Amino acid sequence: MTKPLILVSNDDGITAPGLRVLVEIAKKIGRVIVVAPDGPQSGMGHAITVNQPLRVEQMDIFENAEAFQTTGTPVDCVKLAIDKLLITKPDLLLSGINHGNNSSINVIYSGTMSAAVEGAINGIPSIGFSLTDYSYHADFEPAVPYIEKIIHNLLQNPLPPNSLLNVNIPTTKNIKGIKVCRQANAKWEESFEERIDPYGRKYYWMIGNFVNIDNGEDTDVFALSQDYVSIVPTQYDLTDYKSISIVNNWNLNEK
Amino acid sequence: MTKPLILVSNDDGITAPGLRVLVEIAKKIGRVIVVAPDGPQSGMGHAITVNQPLRVEQMDIFENAEAFQTTGTPVDCVKLAIDKLLITKPDLLLSGINHGNNSSINVIYSGTMSAAVEGAINGIPSIGFSLTDYSYHADFEPAVPYIEKIIHNLLQNPLPPNSLLNVNIPTTKNIKGIKVCRQANAKWEESFEERIDPYGRKYYWMIGNFVNIDNGEDTDVFALSQDYVSIVPTQYDLTDYKSISIVNNWNLNEK
Repeated sequence: MTKPLILVSNDDGITAPGLRVLVEIAKKIGRVIVVAPDGPQSGMGHAITVNQPLRVEQMDIFENAEAFQTTGTPVDCVKLAIDKLLITKPDLLLSGINHGNNSSINVIYSGTMSAAVEGAINGIPSIGFSLTDYSYHADFEPAVPYIEKIIHNLLQNPLPPNSLLNVNIPTTKNIKGIKVCRQANAKWEESFEERIDPYGRKYYWMIGNFVNIDNGEDTDVFALSQDYVSIVPTQYDLTDYKSISIVNNWNLNEK
Repeated sequence: MTKPLILVSNDDGITAPGLRVLVEIAKKIGRVIVVAPDGPQSGMGHAITVNQPLRVEQMDIFENAEAFQTTGTPVDCVKLAIDKLLITKPDLLLSGINHGNNSSINVIYSGTMSAAVEGAINGIPSIGFSLTDYSYHADFEPAVPYIEKIIHNLLQNPLPPNSLLNVNIPTTKNIKGIKVCRQANAKWEESFEERIDPYGRKYYWMIGNFVNIDNGEDTDVFALSQDYVSIVPTQYDLTDYKSISIVNNWNLNEK
């Protein structure tokens, strides 16, 4: 049996330690190609580069894994990989390991998760992995056996089309297990810190405060708070089906 | 009764003609404040600016409407408006009118729709409007009565929390009416055009081909093809609920 072809990407950039850990895991399972941004692209969501051209450079930074850095977003990386850098469609897309939590509402701001969503749009079994520790020096070791177990399960049990996984791993040496969850309903309450530049002009730094407004014990935020790895099966149909009949009752087609 | 406070944003930038049309519509309904990017931000999805500070500048470009341009993304604009530029939470957020189609999968790449999603996250009734014409000189006039009708209906009939509207308007003088739809399952098949710069180095332009793989007659793509305005009630919980039981049957917690 041929080993699966695994595309690895992230949003922290090609030099991020979390990417390196994921590449090592992937190499035990299949042939690996890395296509990742040339610098940090956190918070890029599902952004694509439409007004600028992109550059791609082959990098010699991983043993036994081809690697390319691009000037694009995480989603650009996946598109470039599929269209230009790979001869065949990958059997698996792994994104991460993100330095920082992508549970709950973070999924829509996350470049790491958007790379995985782009994989699913292209019919590739895809997983985004995130550790709830923003530090460059985060300890990814306790996460490794859980990541391996989830990858092996996905390879053996394909998900329905359009479905992918959002996996978040708590920062603890005593992970209790894995819980399958729904996305918690939470939000970031931003405030902007106002500063004055050396030329007397105002500028603003975004500083956010994460607010969970969801008491459900079936959410990813709850599972992580209990030291479980959370898996949220994820999809990208944003239709609010329950509101279709509500809007159908409006007076939209009367003269 | 006080007139509603309406926040208007977009992703084509503060000088876009589509924004100007939406501002004129909004001024007939309420007090208007515009907070929009200082240049094109198409394809930015739900990107936020985390590694750079933001600048905001008050602009004197609309009669009877305060206006601010920012160096940020559409989502940054909404966050800045709520946190720094508005004293009270707006009663309504209108995003657009986008120069170009945001039906189907485009919703996740669209800065216009992401501004509206950010409004809904913050509990503001929100609508994103798009015209299926990418031209700067697009004719927005046939769209105006439909946009007004949809806004008036939303103000009279609040949607459930977390719900917003994605409205796309076909490019025709003979719009047949309005249909409430689901998001079509479609994708962009990208290819990248390779060029050589004056220094002999390769660079790539993304060029996409929209492929609708959904034959449903209840989709936004179908409604638009029949010259109807499409409304997709939209939400931002990406959980794939039908796959939770599937993943729960995997062997994830066995030793």
